[in-house]
Amino acid sequence: ALSGGQQQRVALARALVIRPNLLLLDEPLSNLDAKLRIEMRREIRRICKQSGTTAIYVTHDQDEALSMSDRMAVLNAGQVQQCDTPVNSYRKPASRFVAEFLGEANLVLAELADMDAQFARVRLAADRPMFHVEHALSTTQVRPGAVVSLMVRPADLHPVPAASDSNPTVDADLIPLGHARVLDSQFFGATTSLAVEGEFPLEGILRIQTSAHGAAFNEGDRVALYGSQSAMWVLPQDTTTSRA
Amino acid sequence: ALSGGQQQRVALARALVIRPNLLLLDEPLSNLDAKLRIEMRREIRRICKQSGTTAIYVTHDQDEALSMSDRMAVLNAGQVQQCDTPVNSYRKPASRFVAEFLGEANLVLAELADMDAQFARVRLAADRPMFHVEHALSTTQVRPGAVVSLMVRPADLHPVPAASDSNPTVDADLIPLGHARVLDSQFFGATTSLAVEGEFPLEGILRIQTSAHGAAFNEGDRVALYGSQSAMWVLPQDTTTSRA
Repeated sequence: ALSGGQQQRVALARALVIRPNLLLLDEPLSNLDAKLRIEMRREIRRICKQSGTTAIYVTHDQDEALSMSDRMAVLNAGQVQQCDTPVNSYRKPASRFVAEFLGEANLVLAELADMDAQFARVRLAADRPMFHVEHALSTTQVRPGAVVSLMVRPADLHPVPAASDSNPTVDADLIPLGHARVLDSQFFGATTSLAVEGEFPLEGILRIQTSAHGAAFNEGDRVALYGSQSAMWVLPQDTTTSRA
Repeated sequence: ALSGGQQQRVALARALVIRPNLLLLDEPLSNLDAKLRIEMRREIRRICKQSGTTAIYVTHDQDEALSMSDRMAVLNAGQVQQCDTPVNSYRKPASRFVAEFLGEANLVLAELADMDAQFARVRLAADRPMFHVEHALSTTQVRPGAVVSLMVRPADLHPVPAASDSNPTVDADLIPLGHARVLDSQFFGATTSLAVEGEFPLEGILRIQTSAHGAAFNEGDRVALYGSQSAMWVLPQDTTTSRA
């Protein structure tokens, strides 16, 4: 009898031997166990690249989509929300749905001062300095003075103990966001995942992913949060959301 | 009807209401879907902490073990290989089995010069400088001149394009390991996973986990690899391995 992985390889070989112009793969790995699924991702991508075959690959698995595709289309209720490279879809999502579908998206609220085609000038409060972030706003949607949503991915938030009161590094890319309180800390080896409650305007709870070598934080600790300016992204003013 | 999560909460409440001295949980979350499993991890830990109940929690899921436990015992063939905090078990595994069971473990081969109780002095080749790393060696097992295995986790390897020929940062913690060739690059949003073939003594293929903001690498690229000295760890000279 053939193993699950062997069966998938045979099915793929049968589909490729007729030299198709286009190969449609619909959740081909959903019945395999985790380890085999990861191997087969690489294998399918390699075979398609080597044979020069274009494939349309349908999946609900974000890791599969991000790691296998040259371009990915994110669909919501039958509509394409974004068709872009994996890096752009993750870093510069075209909608809030895409932002939340491809990973955890922290949303910090800021006031828009003005913008050009690429950058928006924003500030977190009236008494705070302005800074520039890239955006997906349209001038017909939003006017200066409007409140906009800054997306920051968990790995782009940097907490330091609040007592230290100093910028953690000389990194000019870091913007001070404000203080926050640690609700939960979970160690996963390479990373530690924190849930924090921010003391500044934002939506919901912030998720932070720190490297294993950062300071250790415990429930109840107060931290000062910094965000990587180059990794922040102003979402368009849409109302769709994947949050249930 | 109760949902899977509700059933687990009821079962836990029933077990706790008799105020046990010890609670045994044997893979309690294995039938739940991924999202609920992650919620229930936090919930079970919170309930045990609040009620002051000691729990023994049996799992095959490394993330569950690392994130839920105060101390974890790693068993292999019925024998406890290490009983330690999650951080120590991950960063300073007592055996090669533990190193490989709790995550990907790159093994670079080095020559031992000498050692004290905490640090071993090693070098990667006769013409390369010595450096200190923490170790789990015993003096009865190994003598100066022996080849030892330096464990480096994927997130502690830092690749830079080989052409640049310069140390990527002024970080004194980084040790140059040598050159390597990229075999495979997979983007996962917050991180990119590289498989590289090292041009220096090591076991197997190296796995690297880089942050999304590092340089992008493609198949065939040649890179210079640096390892974080404080994150390297000399494994004891055992022969057990989880590699099939």
